Amino acid sequence: MSKNVLIMAGDGIGPEIMEQAENVLRFVNEQESLGLEFDHALVGGASIDAAGVPLTEDALKLAKASDAILFGAIGGPKWESLEIAIRPEKGLLRLRSEMELFGNLRPAMLYPQLAEASSLKPELVSGLDILIVRELTGGIYFGQPRGIRTLENGERQGYNTYVYSESEIIRIGRVAFEAAMKRGKKLCSVDKANVLEVTELWREIMTDLNKEYPEVKLSHMYVDNAAMQLIRAPKQFDVIVTGNMFGDILSDAAAMLTGSIGMLPSASLDKNNKGMYEPCHGSAPDIAGQGIANPLATILSAAMMLRYSLGHGATADRLEAAVSKVLDQGYRTADIYSEGTQKVSTSQMGEAVLNVLKSS
Amino acid sequence: MSKNVLIMAGDGIGPEIMEQAENVLRFVNEQESLGLEFDHALVGGASIDAAGVPLTEDALKLAKASDAILFGAIGGPKWESLEIAIRPEKGLLRLRSEMELFGNLRPAMLYPQLAEASSLKPELVSGLDILIVRELTGGIYFGQPRGIRTLENGERQGYNTYVYSESEIIRIGRVAFEAAMKRGKKLCSVDKANVLEVTELWREIMTDLNKEYPEVKLSHMYVDNAAMQLIRAPKQFDVIVTGNMFGDILSDAAAMLTGSIGMLPSASLDKNNKGMYEPCHGSAPDIAGQGIANPLATILSAAMMLRYSLGHGATADRLEAAVSKVLDQGYRTADIYSEGTQKVSTSQMGEAVLNVLKSS
Ligand SMILES: CC(C)[C@H](C(=O)O)[C@@H](O)C(=O)O
Ligand SMILES: CC(C)[C@H](C(=O)O)[C@@H](O)C(=O)O
Repeated sequence: MSKNVLIMAGDGIGPEIMEQAENVLRFVNEQESLGLEFDHALVGGASIDAAGVPLTEDALKLAKASDAILFGAIGGPKWESLEIAIRPEKGLLRLRSEMELFGNLRPAMLYPQLAEASSLKPELVSGLDILIVRELTGGIYFGQPRGIRTLENGERQGYNTYVYSESEIIRIGRVAFEAAMKRGKKLCSVDKANVLEVTELWREIMTDLNKEYPEVKLSHMYVDNAAMQLIRAPKQFDVIVTGNMFGDILSDAAAMLTGSIGMLPSASLDKNNKGMYEPCHGSAPDIAGQGIANPLATILSAAMMLRYSLGHGATADRLEAAVSKVLDQGYRTADIYSEGTQKVSTSQMGEAVLNVLKSS
Repeated sequence: MSKNVLIMAGDGIGPEIMEQAENVLRFVNEQESLGLEFDHALVGGASIDAAGVPLTEDALKLAKASDAILFGAIGGPKWESLEIAIRPEKGLLRLRSEMELFGNLRPAMLYPQLAEASSLKPELVSGLDILIVRELTGGIYFGQPRGIRTLENGERQGYNTYVYSESEIIRIGRVAFEAAMKRGKKLCSVDKANVLEVTELWREIMTDLNKEYPEVKLSHMYVDNAAMQLIRAPKQFDVIVTGNMFGDILSDAAAMLTGSIGMLPSASLDKNNKGMYEPCHGSAPDIAGQGIANPLATILSAAMMLRYSLGHGATADRLEAAVSKVLDQGYRTADIYSEGTQKVSTSQMGEAVLNVLKSS
């Protein structure tokens, strides 16, 4: 039975890194007769330029009909002066929302080969392996009402709404507790329950859910403290669960602790584990087109896709092992380069992974 | 002409650290005949225990009548199960709001004597000196409507409102541009203008204000990227300006970069530079009553108070020099202790500062 993968490369370095990930995917697809079929669609600025909107109805239909989506990155200065409603980001947000991809898994792990890349002292991050579970289709990203209005006194006022219902909190909570059960059984729920009522409800529901997963050691932390603790002693965390906005901030902070955000994949899943997979890094417009971007986060995202949405866990393992192998071989793109290693281009890095797969 | 200082020690380690700061203040007050008069009021959990509310009307009246407030810290597990409306934090938030202390200055600087305390590699933080300007009386902390309601389908929903008007953004913007003019003339405004309309307005207004301060180099950064950049290369920043919630998170992250949050003071000012001064750290209930907390952030907050609200800049300089001197002398409380230095208690640290002042 064939499965459909929709490839959405997006903007900036998106197309470059995606080319390498697609090569790798096509190779294992043939080699192992996985029966994957590939399709492509524009998203973000590329779609704005071609069709005037960051996500066309056709692209959305393709996405919904696919078994999984591999996503590159979106956005850039070219589209930054557009209003929020028609920006590149809206294409991504609409995909997440319409496909109900509420469960965002963002691992932050340090490759031993890249330990030096972290800005933290090595002993604080060696062996780091955190999973951030971020709610992705609710919270202040999608809350209504929102906009900019003119007050009676003539001045303008901007407003957004931070909102979560019980059922939204429960479903992301379950994703996090399940993930914790498969890992170190420690879950830290991050909120601002001393100030925000919406997160007071969040905390209450996480505490309730703990009864269903009594083996998991649940703790609660205020978001300001969590930002500090990630810097002070990141290895205290196993799984972190939080809302959309706090998750955006904390997952980027956690990723940066590794010093190699170009290595980190992510998965965004719906309730049936259908999902969209994307690197944690952005579209990096400053280096787009130069052929120096790191394709490994996208290749690792493809591995997550094979595992979670396509039922090919063994192939995923092979891909991940291949990535680790090319690091052992000393290949580094510019972002993770250090003295004594070999600096390679985007395509050379993709080929290095292919070579390992060919000989394994 | 005498000036009134209201001392609000609060909860946890608050009373212990405040005792030392008050000793120091009383000493310089006599020595230099500054004419300061001191009064005391309860706040936070201490006020809840004594009067049932986190801030009494009497305490608020005293605060409004004073020329400056020195604040310790509030909160603790004892009061964590209370509703948001009557928690210790509400006392602090009400003070900020009723006194219109919208301009929160949070310096994050690394004392050369404590360079090793940072979890970051020394070369990334040596000489670090960032000022975070946080809006403190608006945004999602105070936005209406807020609460927890029951939906038609019977489930509960929590909601808060993130709101800023033009005039609120302009006044905090001016504080930040003025601060930048007195420092390195670089200002980074942090928002999430690619997703949140309220921060789209924020960005527009900061850009407009730049015309009044053409010498200041203004940049904009998304909050997730700011969290990353603080970890990756914190010295790229001079002054950062942002809203209440993002400022809460980023100022704690920035403080933790120094590894010595027990050293960092803060000021919260109204439009006439009347203000409240408090250490950046919290009430640390886990170590309260043990006499081991670091009083230096509170003493440095007293110095900021002397400078900004009481017109005694020279005395402030003396206090700051005395703090630096005790570090040179090798005195360290537990939080900043490292091998080869002398571990001292809260009161010993206070006395060490007094001794320097006595002999200077
Ligand atoms: C591009 C942007 C809308 C997005 C977000 O804020 O969610 C990105 O920062 C991310 O974390 O995936
Ligand atoms: C205690 C709490 C309400 C407060 C805040 O969130 O503002 C604190 O974290 C701070 O930063 O001063």
